[in-house]
Amino acid sequence: MFDAAIVGAGPAGLSAAINLKQLGKDFIWFGSAGGGKVAKSELIANYPGLGLVSGGEMDRRFAGHAAALGIAPEDKLVTGIMPLDGKYMLLAENQVYEARAVILATGAVAAKGLPGEQEYLGRGVSYCATCDGFLYRGKRIAVLCASPCYEHEAAYLAQLAEETFFWPAYPASALAGGGLTRLSGPIARILGQDKVTAIVLADGTEIAVDGVFCLRSAVAPAVLLPGLPMDGPHIAVDRQCRTGLAGCFAAGDCTGRPYQIAKAVGEGNVAAHALAEYLADAGKA
Amino acid sequence: MFDAAIVGAGPAGLSAAINLKQLGKDFIWFGSAGGGKVAKSELIANYPGLGLVSGGEMDRRFAGHAAALGIAPEDKLVTGIMPLDGKYMLLAENQVYEARAVILATGAVAAKGLPGEQEYLGRGVSYCATCDGFLYRGKRIAVLCASPCYEHEAAYLAQLAEETFFWPAYPASALAGGGLTRLSGPIARILGQDKVTAIVLADGTEIAVDGVFCLRSAVAPAVLLPGLPMDGPHIAVDRQCRTGLAGCFAAGDCTGRPYQIAKAVGEGNVAAHALAEYLADAGKA
Repeated sequence: MFDAAIVGAGPAGLSAAINLKQLGKDFIWFGSAGGGKVAKSELIANYPGLGLVSGGEMDRRFAGHAAALGIAPEDKLVTGIMPLDGKYMLLAENQVYEARAVILATGAVAAKGLPGEQEYLGRGVSYCATCDGFLYRGKRIAVLCASPCYEHEAAYLAQLAEETFFWPAYPASALAGGGLTRLSGPIARILGQDKVTAIVLADGTEIAVDGVFCLRSAVAPAVLLPGLPMDGPHIAVDRQCRTGLAGCFAAGDCTGRPYQIAKAVGEGNVAAHALAEYLADAGKA
Repeated sequence: MFDAAIVGAGPAGLSAAINLKQLGKDFIWFGSAGGGKVAKSELIANYPGLGLVSGGEMDRRFAGHAAALGIAPEDKLVTGIMPLDGKYMLLAENQVYEARAVILATGAVAAKGLPGEQEYLGRGVSYCATCDGFLYRGKRIAVLCASPCYEHEAAYLAQLAEETFFWPAYPASALAGGGLTRLSGPIARILGQDKVTAIVLADGTEIAVDGVFCLRSAVAPAVLLPGLPMDGPHIAVDRQCRTGLAGCFAAGDCTGRPYQIAKAVGEGNVAAHALAEYLADAGKA
């Protein structure tokens, strides 16, 4: 069992990881190194100490900092977290991990996902192409793709499925061909009975499908960890980055505005220190 | 009148200044550039993006970042702040400045100063050698010196006064000679009637003096801005770095633990954004 699990490898997750390392904690860190929102920023001028930098340069410096400390995120998407007997069970790509405490640094994702998403999770809704794709061989699926970096997963799914209805949630996507139909607008909700039966587009169009893949950098907090107290679209935290669940901390954009790198880095630091204090107190009890 | 005044030039003040500059605000920034706690740190390993750096190197990078944006702190000590008609009046070395909002980034100083300090402020207690030193020509004074960087002020006072009782609040001080008497222990309290009459040392020794100079990087928040709601030794703030006074924000060590550069930088960013929102709302009203 790990002392801690960090979910997310943006600035908040990185800052938490650097600090947990310095604090001598044994932790697992989930997320995709690089290629996230920082790397996509054109220029950043307000992160003290780096002057005027491109997002790519800042991303390299962040990754280099982690590498110098001998830490790197596991490139796995955490799709479920469950509190159990004073610890947490995390599910990532069909493997289960145990940790005494958790830091959520999942970024600014929609708090609840699509209507129907949580309801049909595991019953037609999936977050992981490589885990669940084979279930939809020869079937009809919808794919919500949040970023170009998931297009290879969408292409993989399109090869397996008979028909793939594709919605890229960003301006331009060149993905086409082979059983792939571009939707005319965003997916508004997911319908089903025992299992997913259809998607509904924003204009009301209903399309029958057997499954829906939501390819995103992170799962919506309320789906990831049911029962986690929210504050509107954000995870509710106090000044120590403690959430409403003992041993669960949150940092960065997922805790609210301003969506700023410096704020995320500061909260990652605070969350790591609060987590260390939590483990020390739990050790005494 | 300025949009904002920032009090303090450590990481929190710097971050606030960089962001107010980016947000297009007209502000004045008080504090000593460089030479603070950052510069004195031997090595810093947990500020994401800078890897393993010396405090001196980080200090230079911070100063360079501000310089690149064309901003620098005014090297003046703010000794009093007063809310007045929806704005703030700041007193710094006998000059008065007006600002619509304030960010306090004064660092981790004792919340209330010495017993008697607030009571006799302006009646024998002073924070500014160059402002008030001449009042003590030929008199007996005590000097509490928080850092070697104020020794030149202490030496200046020792030249003016007949006798100077000196207490450096750090391990080694070479300051000696010319009417300067090193105290055997820290000053525990300040006594007076209409004005200061004496200091009392930790061992109970009472020494008659006409004045007490407290040479520190910042004035204790509760002395600086009477009525500011505190949370124990720290300034009480919410998640947006708002204090209990409208238009007054706080960031960094003065708002509480962990005393970390990343946390201070994050809060400086948050405070600047919250201040901009406050000004926008005030403009609408």
